[in-house]
Amino acid sequence: MNKDKALLGSIDSESNDRINQFIKILRKVCNHRVLNLHEPFFSGNETKYLEECVSTNFVSSVGKFVSKFEEMLSELTGAKHVIATVNGTSALHLSLLCLGIRSKDEVLLPTLTFVGSANSIRYCNAIPHFCDISEDDLNLDLDKLRDHLKFTAEKHHVHSINKYTNKRIAAIMPVHVFGQPVDMETLLSIASEYKLTIVEDAAESLGSFLNKKHTGTFGEIGCLSFNGNKIVTTGGGGAILTNDDMLAKQIRHMSTTAKIVHPWELSHDEIGYNYRMPNINAALGCAQLELFSNLLENKRNLHMKYKKELDGIPWLRLISENKESISNYWLNTVIVKNNEDCFQKRLIETCHKEKIFLRPSWKPLHLLPMFQSCPKSELNTASFLRKKIINLPSSAFL
Amino acid sequence: MNKDKALLGSIDSESNDRINQFIKILRKVCNHRVLNLHEPFFSGNETKYLEECVSTNFVSSVGKFVSKFEEMLSELTGAKHVIATVNGTSALHLSLLCLGIRSKDEVLLPTLTFVGSANSIRYCNAIPHFCDISEDDLNLDLDKLRDHLKFTAEKHHVHSINKYTNKRIAAIMPVHVFGQPVDMETLLSIASEYKLTIVEDAAESLGSFLNKKHTGTFGEIGCLSFNGNKIVTTGGGGAILTNDDMLAKQIRHMSTTAKIVHPWELSHDEIGYNYRMPNINAALGCAQLELFSNLLENKRNLHMKYKKELDGIPWLRLISENKESISNYWLNTVIVKNNEDCFQKRLIETCHKEKIFLRPSWKPLHLLPMFQSCPKSELNTASFLRKKIINLPSSAFL
Repeated sequence: MNKDKALLGSIDSESNDRINQFIKILRKVCNHRVLNLHEPFFSGNETKYLEECVSTNFVSSVGKFVSKFEEMLSELTGAKHVIATVNGTSALHLSLLCLGIRSKDEVLLPTLTFVGSANSIRYCNAIPHFCDISEDDLNLDLDKLRDHLKFTAEKHHVHSINKYTNKRIAAIMPVHVFGQPVDMETLLSIASEYKLTIVEDAAESLGSFLNKKHTGTFGEIGCLSFNGNKIVTTGGGGAILTNDDMLAKQIRHMSTTAKIVHPWELSHDEIGYNYRMPNINAALGCAQLELFSNLLENKRNLHMKYKKELDGIPWLRLISENKESISNYWLNTVIVKNNEDCFQKRLIETCHKEKIFLRPSWKPLHLLPMFQSCPKSELNTASFLRKKIINLPSSAFL
Repeated sequence: MNKDKALLGSIDSESNDRINQFIKILRKVCNHRVLNLHEPFFSGNETKYLEECVSTNFVSSVGKFVSKFEEMLSELTGAKHVIATVNGTSALHLSLLCLGIRSKDEVLLPTLTFVGSANSIRYCNAIPHFCDISEDDLNLDLDKLRDHLKFTAEKHHVHSINKYTNKRIAAIMPVHVFGQPVDMETLLSIASEYKLTIVEDAAESLGSFLNKKHTGTFGEIGCLSFNGNKIVTTGGGGAILTNDDMLAKQIRHMSTTAKIVHPWELSHDEIGYNYRMPNINAALGCAQLELFSNLLENKRNLHMKYKKELDGIPWLRLISENKESISNYWLNTVIVKNNEDCFQKRLIETCHKEKIFLRPSWKPLHLLPMFQSCPKSELNTASFLRKKIINLPSSAFL
């Protein structure tokens, strides 16, 4: 009993030392008193373009900034078509719909992602099928995915069937988590083997490349997000990337309530959506994209500063890009190796008291009540890492 | 044959005279060369508030303008709770969901409305059930509705069943079309008799009152829209009005991805939606609402000018408010009484050539391919008026 207490005491004191060391490093790297996780950085034509929307009376879904924003994104990502939407979740939803994902289809995705990824699947009345992540980059573990499919999927001529649920496994949604690119070359070969359509959730990876190709342009469709916490923000916003002409046309149509183009008649030919990004939001996005290379550079510099300070510390590991990829370092992420069960929680609590608003990752989605009965692979790594992941303050102005 | 030609010739020439007379009146009332149907009118703090969003870094779904906008709407409408959303369609969708509208439920609505009304029902996997409109105000014909329900609905203890489809008739969505208030007192009594939940589509009627009570506050829920063509715009936006505390809490929760409130944990307890209005859009809305009484006054004056010029013309009828109601006169509307089948089309074509961009009404929804098999009442008036309704240029600055 006394021995146990003594042991606990020493763990406690060791943990406290680590937490204090960690806070010192954060203060050194980010020289601000209040450290939010990720704030926008406005330093260009934001106000000017917003003023222009007001003075020209174009604030809504028609306007030059929407087209300009789409063109700029097309140039940046290399995607032939870009359709700007109200947010990233709507982009994913519309992508799945236009790719023919239907009621009861299964869609593979990592369990460690923002809830919008899985929600967009449910909006189609389709079923999320959760896969495990890799400890290296927190993205889909592709070895495990292959094993899981070998065990679970029955290959048919045009699609695969889940042997256990008897449902079509129709698509896979890789997520470039925190800006780190998924190994899309390997994923493409798995998808091809099992006839899976690919919708890349590139919500967090604008500016992230794999072998010089932009994330979100490997699969049939990629989706971006411009929420307030993203590297580029439009207040709320998203975009769909595709190289497929027909698909792009269909997505554009469905995002504008499936209205038949006509100078005055108001008619629609499908159940469409009110998903277009308003001009006022796109105006903000255009100003942000003009400075995008600066934003990326700032974020890379911040990562390097973290790297310099954290690399020698044995009880944590900072996640960095591998040699094939360029990360936008949207959110710098460490895995703590501490054995104490609630170390992550104590560290976060202490930091919040110090006004350093760091964050654990999302709760793995298969643990949420509405997804508990969904099909899944073995998910040991995600379950294990859940209490180890910490996202660091990563605003581009730090 | 020659006699027919002569007759056609005289109709033609009469129609041309009428079209020319009409254009002259429009030019007299609206002293602008280009006449769009409805443009925004920015003349207050719009730019100042947008600048403030950028300078304070609050552009996304958290920010003081969102709360301020909701408070201002609450004061204006008298609704206890207001939840601002990304658009009017999302407001309707979330309202139906939170009221418990489920797969295969039927929801009554007028066939003459924007497609978003019916789409929001389909997003819940529920079924639009179309009703006819009144020639007087183009709103739901409540006498016909009562007759239709008498014939179709079987009253049960807690709800009504459609005798012919065997589905629950769960709700009714009255639409205050073009800003004219539906007779909600009568509708409330019908809804009470048949245990129908009411979601008011008040997308077009901000500032419209019935017996001094704001439209959208009679039923369980009312929904507003702030699209670019509305009397007040936020670029894209909507809002949900309710006096029910529990319902408001649930709607707010569901509109923010059903995230469980916690300083750092990221967990969700339902399939939620990314439906909150961003701060930057709300900023525009706040500036617009500050000038709302001016906007309303301008629009009333415009209506009076139209009334003065059009009242003596025997072949058309301008729709005006009745004595119990105050209309915001969002879109001034005439019914043409011409016998020539394509007179409306010719009038609109000619006006468009003159850069007067007036518009017919929406194609009645029961005629659209995706709604053709939906249940419906007799819809003679809507079908008859389809080629008679014309919306006039109605911007508040005219």
